[in-house]
Amino acid sequence: MPQADMGLVGLAVMGQNLVLNMSDHGYRVAVYNRSRATTEKFIAGPARERDITGCYSLEELVRELKAPRKVMLMIRAGDPVDQLIQQLAPLLSPGDIIIDGGNSRFSDTDRRVREAAASGFRYLGCGISGGEEGARHGPSIMPGGDASAWPEVRPIFQAIAAQVDGEPCCQWVGEGGSGHYVKMVHNGIEYGDMQLISEAFHLMQGGLRMEVDRMQQVFADWNRGVLDSYLIEITADILGYRDSDGLPLIDKILDAAGQKGTGKWTGISALDLGIPLTLIAEAVFARCLSSRKEERERAAALYAVEPVPIDGDPEEAIDDLRDALYASKIISYAQGYMLMQEAAEAYGWNLNYGDIALMWRGGCIIRSRFLGNIKDAYDRNPSLENLLAADFFVEALGQAGPGWRRTVTRGIRLGLPLPALGSALAFFDGYRSARLPANLLQAQRDYFGAHTYERIDRPRGEFFHTDWTGRGGTAASSTYDV
Amino acid sequence: MPQADMGLVGLAVMGQNLVLNMSDHGYRVAVYNRSRATTEKFIAGPARERDITGCYSLEELVRELKAPRKVMLMIRAGDPVDQLIQQLAPLLSPGDIIIDGGNSRFSDTDRRVREAAASGFRYLGCGISGGEEGARHGPSIMPGGDASAWPEVRPIFQAIAAQVDGEPCCQWVGEGGSGHYVKMVHNGIEYGDMQLISEAFHLMQGGLRMEVDRMQQVFADWNRGVLDSYLIEITADILGYRDSDGLPLIDKILDAAGQKGTGKWTGISALDLGIPLTLIAEAVFARCLSSRKEERERAAALYAVEPVPIDGDPEEAIDDLRDALYASKIISYAQGYMLMQEAAEAYGWNLNYGDIALMWRGGCIIRSRFLGNIKDAYDRNPSLENLLAADFFVEALGQAGPGWRRTVTRGIRLGLPLPALGSALAFFDGYRSARLPANLLQAQRDYFGAHTYERIDRPRGEFFHTDWTGRGGTAASSTYDV
Repeated sequence: MPQADMGLVGLAVMGQNLVLNMSDHGYRVAVYNRSRATTEKFIAGPARERDITGCYSLEELVRELKAPRKVMLMIRAGDPVDQLIQQLAPLLSPGDIIIDGGNSRFSDTDRRVREAAASGFRYLGCGISGGEEGARHGPSIMPGGDASAWPEVRPIFQAIAAQVDGEPCCQWVGEGGSGHYVKMVHNGIEYGDMQLISEAFHLMQGGLRMEVDRMQQVFADWNRGVLDSYLIEITADILGYRDSDGLPLIDKILDAAGQKGTGKWTGISALDLGIPLTLIAEAVFARCLSSRKEERERAAALYAVEPVPIDGDPEEAIDDLRDALYASKIISYAQGYMLMQEAAEAYGWNLNYGDIALMWRGGCIIRSRFLGNIKDAYDRNPSLENLLAADFFVEALGQAGPGWRRTVTRGIRLGLPLPALGSALAFFDGYRSARLPANLLQAQRDYFGAHTYERIDRPRGEFFHTDWTGRGGTAASSTYDV
Repeated sequence: MPQADMGLVGLAVMGQNLVLNMSDHGYRVAVYNRSRATTEKFIAGPARERDITGCYSLEELVRELKAPRKVMLMIRAGDPVDQLIQQLAPLLSPGDIIIDGGNSRFSDTDRRVREAAASGFRYLGCGISGGEEGARHGPSIMPGGDASAWPEVRPIFQAIAAQVDGEPCCQWVGEGGSGHYVKMVHNGIEYGDMQLISEAFHLMQGGLRMEVDRMQQVFADWNRGVLDSYLIEITADILGYRDSDGLPLIDKILDAAGQKGTGKWTGISALDLGIPLTLIAEAVFARCLSSRKEERERAAALYAVEPVPIDGDPEEAIDDLRDALYASKIISYAQGYMLMQEAAEAYGWNLNYGDIALMWRGGCIIRSRFLGNIKDAYDRNPSLENLLAADFFVEALGQAGPGWRRTVTRGIRLGLPLPALGSALAFFDGYRSARLPANLLQAQRDYFGAHTYERIDRPRGEFFHTDWTGRGGTAASSTYDV
């Protein structure tokens, strides 16, 4: 007699912790891992004296599951997911549910939802954030795919998810690959938040010459204000951590950052959809530049930085920096929401932007007080055109503006790179410019490629071509396109 | 008896002009266009009294060609190219050559080169730049693909290409899709150059409140110095152009820029390959932002810009701006070359970077005196690690630095967006930083996701994990990856 509520494949740290979390909430879970030893170790260790069943084949796993069967994959994204679906499909019955909880690319999930439907079973792609602690005690879960499967898994997922003000950080996202898309944007925003914090740290340490204890205190202070968030909190922890020799561990860590794909996917999607996601792109590129460590060391010898004294009061500079970080964060989230809006339009998803803010508000890596403000903005106006049009953010940017400008200027004067803070400011100044110099771009494109242009004194959709040199023909551009 | 040296398919403006250019150099060309009327009009018009044969089917076209037959496609990129290859293939003999002169995506060209070889004919993907004037009187041509076909088309292509100091702006690029890749990067750099010029124009008009005649004069002056280039030249022309009412036409043109793909492809490739191509990405995003014209107008009402008086001498500000433009341009090209180096590595191409500079130095849209300096740098040191390591550019950036910093600061103070100029400066300051704050990124990633880090006091390749909170496990991250 099958008794398990959920089957889970893949016992790396995230999979193990999700199983224990489900078990805490009274669900019976059957587990399978391709290496038998991992399963045995888990069953004999963390899973001891719990209603968790170790299985040593997919057949065995499937036999343990109540109908409709729910099999959750916590395995590496890419081919392994397709292979596992192929192995599972013949074992499942119509209406059974496969849930991919890994970091799959949304376009893969889109395809798999369609393929599963064609094969008679149901498919969900769930973004899950929160790291190992989140998985264990309450992650943020972003489910999308076959809507008919949502009521079947909803009780389990909403029980194990983080809760904020009595609401679970797990709501239905939408059709197709939208759950993984929203998770991808979450990760992109995470790249942006981490880069912004790193730039603040760089300016404090490299520019304001602050000691690590003082920096730790500033981040801890910031965590009690508008910047209150998980990433600020752990930054204070990290700065406080001493190596075995009593010196700050942070100073021993190599400054070459890795990446695993979701940040760059977010940037690629933005380029594909034509959305100006400048901050996240700069954050991804900053990681790329950091990884060229030896080349940077050689460049540092060629291009010396002249030491510049700190101008003004360091305490004011710290307040300015807080404002810069906050303002840039607003820009980053506004850009991320612009991207999701465009994706929803392009892929036919019906996204609830307030619910997305709710899901991100707890459990996940980017959780913050600030996401409550975003939720409020969408609660007030569910059809908000842009986060930057919400009163709350208009006021916040107005207050933070002067310190933001002083901070970016300070970095330039010191020769200290602030790519994300600076890019955010340039975006903001562009966004609020009724007139941008793209008229010159259009004139250039018409000049060399007969691309035509529109006029401000004529209706949109009327296109004009000028023979700028008197030598051009009347033919319009076709293969030559910039 | 077949007599034509080249068959050309696709009589839009670029195709027509290439045919006339070949004809000027004594080559006999047979032409075909899918609409009969276009061919008839071309034959009766521009092609009159020339050795140009109009054909009204592909069979007829192929019959006109000397062996090995060379058929050049000047048609829209994408499916139309595959369709045409399918139609042509049965008409061709082993060893015949198909040349794609359109703006195809390099990965498509890669595939087509392989498919053609499997079918027994030869395939070249040629990037062509120069707009309609270039096509007519001397474009830049970037051929890649089947190397055995290069000697067959080389005389024609080198004859019709632009010549600089007696050398044709057409050299063999490399294998597979490398010709179209280099053309793609060319177009990305073109996006960057255009954006930089537009930002300079914006600061002159919106910040320094210069009249159009004065701006025209400044660009004309700049065109006699280090910025000497086609795009600066046409900018002066554009600023001098009066509308029928006698007012500057530039002020009537809508500031919403279009794009056709090659710029965004360049950014996508950079993200894919992990190369910090910040300036071109910002240029693409600036076009995206410009296209949201109505939204910007609404935002301008919410976020007023406080008028700020111009500080300092306007003439000095103009000199600073020239330095900023020049320095940023150096950064942009350095980033573009970094991308090509990485692509060559990733795709197994053997690129000659000096020849690429030579090809871009004349004929194409980004042609400039500056590309001569790049050519020189690679002539001196063909295995140059990075353009920024060449003495010439170290000195140039040293001289331009102070004005560059003042310019970006000026934009920030005025609330005037300079995304490309500012992003280039942040990149430069990052590139020459032996120490970046990516140590904090790595600490954060290890804190929440057990991603591990390297240490500055240990050899590369040794990875460490810290249990930052005392609550974490020993399991390393696997599915959860940021």
